[in-house]
Amino acid sequence: MKTDQHPAPGSGQRAEIISVGTELLLGHTVNTDAAWLARSLSALGIDLLHCSVVGDNPERLEAALVQALARSELVITTGGLGPTDDDLTKAVVARVVGRPLVEYPDCLASLREYFGERPMTENQLRQAWLPEGATVFANPNGTAPGCAVPAGSGRFVILLPGPPRELVPMLEASLTPFLAPMAGGSIASFMVRTFGIGEGAAATILADLLGGSNPTAATYAADGEMFVRVTAKATSRQAAEDLARPLLDSVCKRLGDHVYGINVDNLEQVVVQTLIERGQTLATAESCTGGLLARKITDVPGASEVFGTGLVTYANSAKMALLQVDPDILATRGAVSVEVARQMAENVRRLGQSDYGIGITGIAGPGGGSADKPVGLVHIGLATSQGTIIHTMRPRGRYLGREWTRNRAAGTALDLLRRLLEGKPVPTDS
Amino acid sequence: MKTDQHPAPGSGQRAEIISVGTELLLGHTVNTDAAWLARSLSALGIDLLHCSVVGDNPERLEAALVQALARSELVITTGGLGPTDDDLTKAVVARVVGRPLVEYPDCLASLREYFGERPMTENQLRQAWLPEGATVFANPNGTAPGCAVPAGSGRFVILLPGPPRELVPMLEASLTPFLAPMAGGSIASFMVRTFGIGEGAAATILADLLGGSNPTAATYAADGEMFVRVTAKATSRQAAEDLARPLLDSVCKRLGDHVYGINVDNLEQVVVQTLIERGQTLATAESCTGGLLARKITDVPGASEVFGTGLVTYANSAKMALLQVDPDILATRGAVSVEVARQMAENVRRLGQSDYGIGITGIAGPGGGSADKPVGLVHIGLATSQGTIIHTMRPRGRYLGREWTRNRAAGTALDLLRRLLEGKPVPTDS
Repeated sequence: MKTDQHPAPGSGQRAEIISVGTELLLGHTVNTDAAWLARSLSALGIDLLHCSVVGDNPERLEAALVQALARSELVITTGGLGPTDDDLTKAVVARVVGRPLVEYPDCLASLREYFGERPMTENQLRQAWLPEGATVFANPNGTAPGCAVPAGSGRFVILLPGPPRELVPMLEASLTPFLAPMAGGSIASFMVRTFGIGEGAAATILADLLGGSNPTAATYAADGEMFVRVTAKATSRQAAEDLARPLLDSVCKRLGDHVYGINVDNLEQVVVQTLIERGQTLATAESCTGGLLARKITDVPGASEVFGTGLVTYANSAKMALLQVDPDILATRGAVSVEVARQMAENVRRLGQSDYGIGITGIAGPGGGSADKPVGLVHIGLATSQGTIIHTMRPRGRYLGREWTRNRAAGTALDLLRRLLEGKPVPTDS
Repeated sequence: MKTDQHPAPGSGQRAEIISVGTELLLGHTVNTDAAWLARSLSALGIDLLHCSVVGDNPERLEAALVQALARSELVITTGGLGPTDDDLTKAVVARVVGRPLVEYPDCLASLREYFGERPMTENQLRQAWLPEGATVFANPNGTAPGCAVPAGSGRFVILLPGPPRELVPMLEASLTPFLAPMAGGSIASFMVRTFGIGEGAAATILADLLGGSNPTAATYAADGEMFVRVTAKATSRQAAEDLARPLLDSVCKRLGDHVYGINVDNLEQVVVQTLIERGQTLATAESCTGGLLARKITDVPGASEVFGTGLVTYANSAKMALLQVDPDILATRGAVSVEVARQMAENVRRLGQSDYGIGITGIAGPGGGSADKPVGLVHIGLATSQGTIIHTMRPRGRYLGREWTRNRAAGTALDLLRRLLEGKPVPTDS
């Protein structure tokens, strides 16, 4: 059985993904495979220019393959390899590249080992058949192997299984080593994470830095935060980092104190990590956020080192009984007031015997607002050994919903503490 | 400004999705939009035959649009509408369908309302410009409206925003009503929501009910829950409901007490609603879930009627000081024990002066496990006026991570209370 020689290293490889499966077209399955593959290709510096999805239909798959091979050197399919898929992808690829399906003894041995004593059906045995001349990718997590099939003129069709638990390990173990010699370079990628600045404002501040080709900077928005990804490609990892660094520094400088980290997961991770490093602790008292802040903090593994006590005092009775908020102040100023935020922060700091105490009270909506205290109004108190900071979030523009308001309030509280811990200016009411 | 007439009802509509965004080709974002859209189209009985992804590149987007319009009546784009996207999708669609971009006064007014007092940049104002003759889809969750643009011969190009929190509500509020007349009938769709049964087990129980063509039943899994969607299509909404009903009833009967609602948002909504109806209240004390249960409950608007007090006693000191957990029991049994779960539940019920008290203590991992108390072990106490129920979650098979474990524990606690409130059997340790 011949195996085509490996393609020579070079640059400018274009890749294309064809995901095969009617379940994707019905929305039963989210196409996470494509995202995993895209990241692997991006890390190799291989340009991915198209992704497409076709159902379990040989004619449409063939048309998609022919079109893809006409414009890309690498065509990667996912799915359509399993024992219930009637060999769909393999049969069509074999026809398009003109290589018959043949039995691979190593694959057959691997299948027999996988099944052990259990009987194998005819369609399970067919999984040992692949297009002639393919490089086989072993599948330790399933039965259908992947493979790379030469398609002429240095092009390849690469067949991968659909289930993510089979595909993802194969990317690392087989695909990346197979493609690395073709990649012709290394990529360095930095995600700059910010809080408190919108994508529109950031794009204006960064306008002349966005849109280059190498290095590149691009803005993204997700879950109420804005990110900037800075990427560069060069012959080595170090050279790529060196190429990206000046642009990365410019982006960070322009975004200033809004930047809370580079290549970190989220704000709570930075806050918890900083508190761990300083050996300091935090306690929280929440009204409108209802436990969201505590949940974010305890999402971080190891949070128990810095966080011991959180109170969700949703009712006034709880604010008085558990948090010892002054009933007179509750009666005269109302639960949503600067004074109550201050008492919540200070009292939970004391109750939790912590270095910092955060109190949040506000109106998450959709109901409960008034002319005086509109939906979206949130007061945040941050109590420290040096006194208490108060920050008020006032609704500006349209109300964006209960979830947005709660998420924004918890994020703002974390960002206030992050700024305080880093010695950065903290935006306060006064 | 003219608006083309709505297409006549008919069958055999073919749809195609083009997702626009370099972030998808880099794998920074998973294409959940396509799955949401696919489900909406499937529920309408519209055939989706192709999905593709192109980057922020006008030439490749134009080529994809031209190809799609040659083979499909409905071409739906997602993304490329935001203030930093240089009008990419709108400009290319306008060119391909031969309709200039014009300013829509209603969209401008909506933008001004969204921004309120805040200044708007030039690129933000451009979001009020859409191809001439479009049907506008309002975007209450963002700034870029969607729209449907006539493309000749009864075809349409539909432009939708990329962020899922903007796109998903728009599917329900605007896209489905717009497309329904083209779908050639009315659709009735019921989502049966369950807790505590996996997709594999459900598929076995329901095997002979799945896979029909009209009505249809299909299973879905997301966020640790399994759903069954039952859909029927007929000439009227009522006829469709009548057609779906027997299948819906069979599905619910087979899934039994696992079903917590039909066409409801989630378990916490059902629990809060039931408590409101009964005029009863709940208090929570959380250790390993760290506020997640309180957050879920307070996610539901109106939760303040039934929930006043939540404690996050992450540290043993907080369990003793705030929750009055017996120090001897903590010392002899450990924080993760049936006895501590019981005391947490009973004490928070008393502290919060509530009808029900929930206590959760466990090991979310990844660290902190032992042979005796492995990662994934969680004890839940549910205190009532009639006594306290204890339910223990033991890890079975592979550890699925901190987030999964915490989410599962909070969900299980809600489901125990849901079953109790509904008079269903409650799974307990003894």
